[in-house]
Amino acid sequence: MAEKAVVLLSGGLDSTTALYLAHREGYELYALSFLYGQLHDRELLCARWHAAHLGVKKHYEVDLSFTAWDTSALTNEAKMIEEGNLERTTTPNTYVPARNMVFLSIAASIAESVGARYIYIGVSEADYSGYVDCRAAFVEAMERAINEGTERRLTAGRPMEIRAPFLHKTKAEEIALGVSLGVDYAHTWSCYHGGDHPCGVCDSCLLRARAFAMAGVEDPLL
Amino acid sequence: MAEKAVVLLSGGLDSTTALYLAHREGYELYALSFLYGQLHDRELLCARWHAAHLGVKKHYEVDLSFTAWDTSALTNEAKMIEEGNLERTTTPNTYVPARNMVFLSIAASIAESVGARYIYIGVSEADYSGYVDCRAAFVEAMERAINEGTERRLTAGRPMEIRAPFLHKTKAEEIALGVSLGVDYAHTWSCYHGGDHPCGVCDSCLLRARAFAMAGVEDPLL
Repeated sequence: MAEKAVVLLSGGLDSTTALYLAHREGYELYALSFLYGQLHDRELLCARWHAAHLGVKKHYEVDLSFTAWDTSALTNEAKMIEEGNLERTTTPNTYVPARNMVFLSIAASIAESVGARYIYIGVSEADYSGYVDCRAAFVEAMERAINEGTERRLTAGRPMEIRAPFLHKTKAEEIALGVSLGVDYAHTWSCYHGGDHPCGVCDSCLLRARAFAMAGVEDPLL
Repeated sequence: MAEKAVVLLSGGLDSTTALYLAHREGYELYALSFLYGQLHDRELLCARWHAAHLGVKKHYEVDLSFTAWDTSALTNEAKMIEEGNLERTTTPNTYVPARNMVFLSIAASIAESVGARYIYIGVSEADYSGYVDCRAAFVEAMERAINEGTERRLTAGRPMEIRAPFLHKTKAEEIALGVSLGVDYAHTWSCYHGGDHPCGVCDSCLLRARAFAMAGVEDPLL
């Protein structure tokens, strides 16, 4: 019987590429997406497309309203998302407090329920957006907490593992890898805003454009 | 300005007593309750009563459906909750995978948003129901993950602290403490089942009855 993996799948570049990596390993896949009041829910349609395309066993869509307490621009229409600036040294106002911790906790709950040993998350500390919860130190601490806080009866007690394959990779390396895995990046969404076309000026659009340029690949979304 | 604390408040014995302890410290209080498909939502009414009684600054009620993936008896009407047995050595079928990790993660997100340094949780490993996520090792690992995964700009970077004041206390000690703090236990609910009266036979009812008896206090709920 194939080993199982839960993949955090937002529908952006990183998580989509992570999904294809997990698929290449031959794992039975469980995808997990969140509706958390983000303004750019077009991502979710992309997540669904890839989940269907790769035939994941189950795609969980969990509704979790950070807006009840979070004041970040990413989940609040009233607040302007800052214009992109990849040289900024402070945390951008799109930061959602403890988001990856919440996402990984729920992934761990699902992993324990279905008996999955692996949790994939597409974070990167080499080329990231200034978020504290995209660092190796956090991923390691979280893996330990997951193993202390779950029973893993379905995996005979074998520890869970958080796989963050892009932790020390640039987005350009990631895209090159994704292309080799057959990822169709036309079905990914990075822009922090909604709408039919990427805005081209937010942090996420700037990071994406730079990454495609450095990978020498044309962005099929543009 | 008073320091702030987020208190995980289910409306049961433990979390209610924890709320009164945090109140005694003089913290500005933020209570956090979950609607997670538990069958005994009467707890929530108790949580609201105490939050109002102590004048907490804000009571968050977060809807999070573990039922989408969890198969435990606590969240599934179709599954019978096991009859209580305090001598059982296996995990009871009311165990919800990684529940306290998910709860603490969301508490951390709120704590970061409001600038709270303390998170209170009423778990106990001395007198608990056989759940892995009620142990000190888990609480410590989670505190570390929280501090690696949050920014704490509102607390000038000072680390967050998980307070689990009953970790090494029995429920009887807890009740004695609660009585001295003025907790009205008539407004707490422990039974895993819904209904107007506690069933008296589930694990949680048995633990509660034993604790009140050992504390030499009459349970005002009965």
